[in-house]
Amino acid sequence: MSWGLRICLGLVIATFLVGSMALAQSASPTADEAAIQKLLQTQVDAWNRHDLEAFMAGYWNSLELTFFSGANVAHGWQAALDRYRKNYQSGGREMGKLEFQDLQIEKWGPDSAFVRGKFLLTMSDGKHPHGLFTLVLKRFTEGWRIIHDHSSGE
Amino acid sequence: MSWGLRICLGLVIATFLVGSMALAQSASPTADEAAIQKLLQTQVDAWNRHDLEAFMAGYWNSLELTFFSGANVAHGWQAALDRYRKNYQSGGREMGKLEFQDLQIEKWGPDSAFVRGKFLLTMSDGKHPHGLFTLVLKRFTEGWRIIHDHSSGE
Repeated sequence: MSWGLRICLGLVIATFLVGSMALAQSASPTADEAAIQKLLQTQVDAWNRHDLEAFMAGYWNSLELTFFSGANVAHGWQAALDRYRKNYQSGGREMGKLEFQDLQIEKWGPDSAFVRGKFLLTMSDGKHPHGLFTLVLKRFTEGWRIIHDHSSGE
Repeated sequence: MSWGLRICLGLVIATFLVGSMALAQSASPTADEAAIQKLLQTQVDAWNRHDLEAFMAGYWNSLELTFFSGANVAHGWQAALDRYRKNYQSGGREMGKLEFQDLQIEKWGPDSAFVRGKFLLTMSDGKHPHGLFTLVLKRFTEGWRIIHDHSSGE
């Protein structure tokens, strides 16, 4: 076999391997869906022990994070945390017990996903504030993070 | 040049061309962003001439379309249209004049995108119902369509 042919065959094999790896990465939705599900469960657990900082660890720690709630926009991680503190930890307010329902996790590319779901709170007076959310997630080196949250209630 | 080398070089060139085409397709956000912007403008124009069917043409005509509004879910294209008819065309209600503001179109893959924005209505009594929306879009053979809408107001 000539050297030219050897080099050429090497190139074809290398191209095939890189292509296969890219395909394998994009074709493993189950592991990613499980990772996203785990992230959300970690958030629920954090909420239910009233640890807002741990709850917020699921969000992208960036000024570019957006949080839509009703007609209000919070820009950035800190603004989103401040909003939660104001609505659930100040002036006698309580966090209640959180549940997520009807989760629909949809992966769109190797590093992007979106989630549809319902939230249900149970307060000490028996009331159940509830509503819907749409989350947009991105995979970073440290794992999946929510980069946009749109939540709305009654 | 041997036949083996020729075939091999042909394979390398073909692989390179296919790769370049795939790259070119995913690296043209401007054309896709423009197409999505046009879809939304077509919707605004349809709304403002009170043509709900034309407005709804921007949505995926499927039972899998989801429309989140406040704490309510509409499943499917027809349910979304019925909701609009009930809220904006029945019992003396009016559609008003629609505007979209602060549009942020983000493309995620060759066939997926999401949009953040604000809606503002101007009613005949001068009132301005307004709120936020998150849209998830997918590219179909016939073009980009909204497959999930999350809207919320005051």
